[in-house]
Amino acid sequence: MKILVMGAGSIGSLFAGLLACNNENDVTIVAREFQVKAVKSYGLKIKGLIEKTVKNIKAETSVQPLIKEAWDLILLTVKAYSVSEASKQISPLIKEKTMVLCLQNGIGVEDEVLKVIRKENIIRGVTFCGAFLEKPGIVVSTGFGKTILGGLSPRNYDNILDIAENFKNSGFYVEISDNIQSIVWTKTLVNAGINPYGTLTGMRNGELLEYEDLKLLIAETVLEGVRVADKLKIPLPEDPVDLTFKTAKATAENFNSMLQDIKRGRRTEIDYINGAISRLGSSTGVSTPLNMLLTFLVKRLEKNTMVEELWRRVIHQKIS
Amino acid sequence: MKILVMGAGSIGSLFAGLLACNNENDVTIVAREFQVKAVKSYGLKIKGLIEKTVKNIKAETSVQPLIKEAWDLILLTVKAYSVSEASKQISPLIKEKTMVLCLQNGIGVEDEVLKVIRKENIIRGVTFCGAFLEKPGIVVSTGFGKTILGGLSPRNYDNILDIAENFKNSGFYVEISDNIQSIVWTKTLVNAGINPYGTLTGMRNGELLEYEDLKLLIAETVLEGVRVADKLKIPLPEDPVDLTFKTAKATAENFNSMLQDIKRGRRTEIDYINGAISRLGSSTGVSTPLNMLLTFLVKRLEKNTMVEELWRRVIHQKIS
Repeated sequence: MKILVMGAGSIGSLFAGLLACNNENDVTIVAREFQVKAVKSYGLKIKGLIEKTVKNIKAETSVQPLIKEAWDLILLTVKAYSVSEASKQISPLIKEKTMVLCLQNGIGVEDEVLKVIRKENIIRGVTFCGAFLEKPGIVVSTGFGKTILGGLSPRNYDNILDIAENFKNSGFYVEISDNIQSIVWTKTLVNAGINPYGTLTGMRNGELLEYEDLKLLIAETVLEGVRVADKLKIPLPEDPVDLTFKTAKATAENFNSMLQDIKRGRRTEIDYINGAISRLGSSTGVSTPLNMLLTFLVKRLEKNTMVEELWRRVIHQKIS
Repeated sequence: MKILVMGAGSIGSLFAGLLACNNENDVTIVAREFQVKAVKSYGLKIKGLIEKTVKNIKAETSVQPLIKEAWDLILLTVKAYSVSEASKQISPLIKEKTMVLCLQNGIGVEDEVLKVIRKENIIRGVTFCGAFLEKPGIVVSTGFGKTILGGLSPRNYDNILDIAENFKNSGFYVEISDNIQSIVWTKTLVNAGINPYGTLTGMRNGELLEYEDLKLLIAETVLEGVRVADKLKIPLPEDPVDLTFKTAKATAENFNSMLQDIKRGRRTEIDYINGAISRLGSSTGVSTPLNMLLTFLVKRLEKNTMVEELWRRVIHQKIS
């Protein structure tokens, strides 16, 4: 399978690396320059739960040189807020049989792709693999769970079967879902309950469970989303509140990805997590005050205004 | 009138100063040492909307030397969270005719006083005067609105009349209310809508009105409180949401007092504002998620955990 990984950050690199170890595949990544340089020079190294050094990966900083090739699969692994731009970039690469797999967090991501690519070519995926980029060319696998795939159209079911088979042969645990939105929503609701609270308090996931008030707030935040899902007739097979607490417990020592983004001065995915719940709440008439407030405060933190304000204060205390 | 002002911070000092200018009165303040020293050395200076230097004020750092005197009025002007302790300290000073006037922000303050002082001796007051301590012995009057008094028992109505008359003669705009809880709640709801948002975002009161999301959140925060008041059968004659927006606009250039407390590393009154709404919501079965979340986050800021966390991050950015 000829595979392009568009956006080789942590999850993109993990998938690119393992897929490239499968002799059936020919893998190219498109990534930022520092990552492309490292991969071209030393290959891609996977550490943590899996240990591999992968040499046979091609790497480019843009899709321009790749337009004439015939791609079977494009893994779209950019962050949610870059999906719109990345979709435009890959659209000239799409042939009739090219499948685009959207594998980022968040609600409504595939709607951005649908603006430029036909639904017959789009697959939504949710992965429970966790990873972070230790440095350019080195990705650390911190969790290795299922990856679930679902098509936006029943017409691409055979393609999904092929991709699932290929992923399994590459070492992934893969399932196919006929209601991928349920999976997307369930994972997003868990993120909506954990991520902004960890971000605004600086706490590890496990610490969040030590405060009764916070547990009530987390539950209510998730329940706001459950009510929106209900209105949108998206079934949620597991109890999302229960799953949120279980996930926080299972990842007790972790700082969530949103907090990591803020610490690194990066934009977060809040707009596609709590922000999406809040927007869809508004449009369906479901009240979502907590998701709205959390979105506002995290976006304020993104802009660093609060940090600077508090920083001035701390500095002031130190010198006065 | 022999008047003791217990807790001569900004509002306490303003009242002590103006009451002492009235020849009918003999005023003593109990305050922290720096304030007592300044007042004993230079008198109390009022600046801003009113300009006065008041020499005839006595000042003590504790109530111990004052126990044998016969007080007509004790103004309890400590912060809400100090009312319980201050009430215990003044309780030996209360004679049958001594009135205690509670003049701080927040809901449920008088319940703390009621634990040690009979309700016949207690008056609740709400003042729309604003002031801040510029330095020891110097208070700046920033707003000069009404002061509204109401007894906890109909038995002390004559005493309230005397006090109101005395305050008027001292230059205050005074009203008597037969439903002081309505006034307390209305002012608290305005504070609940403005203060935590200014605190968590670092914004001036007027800036809060520039964001549509924030206006919705402020309105919903106030409405949670309105629903609790309704359940407790506390009438709210004015529309508290409308009043909150009007107040923010009228004080557009101000940083609210809660933000000032946080900036100075002091405890805030959040427990008696949003915290009280949230607690009473719980006990009456009214959902108050926003007030609960705001309380949690402001208390987290009080502990400085977030500040330190963010500070480390900023420092890290500066050196890396």
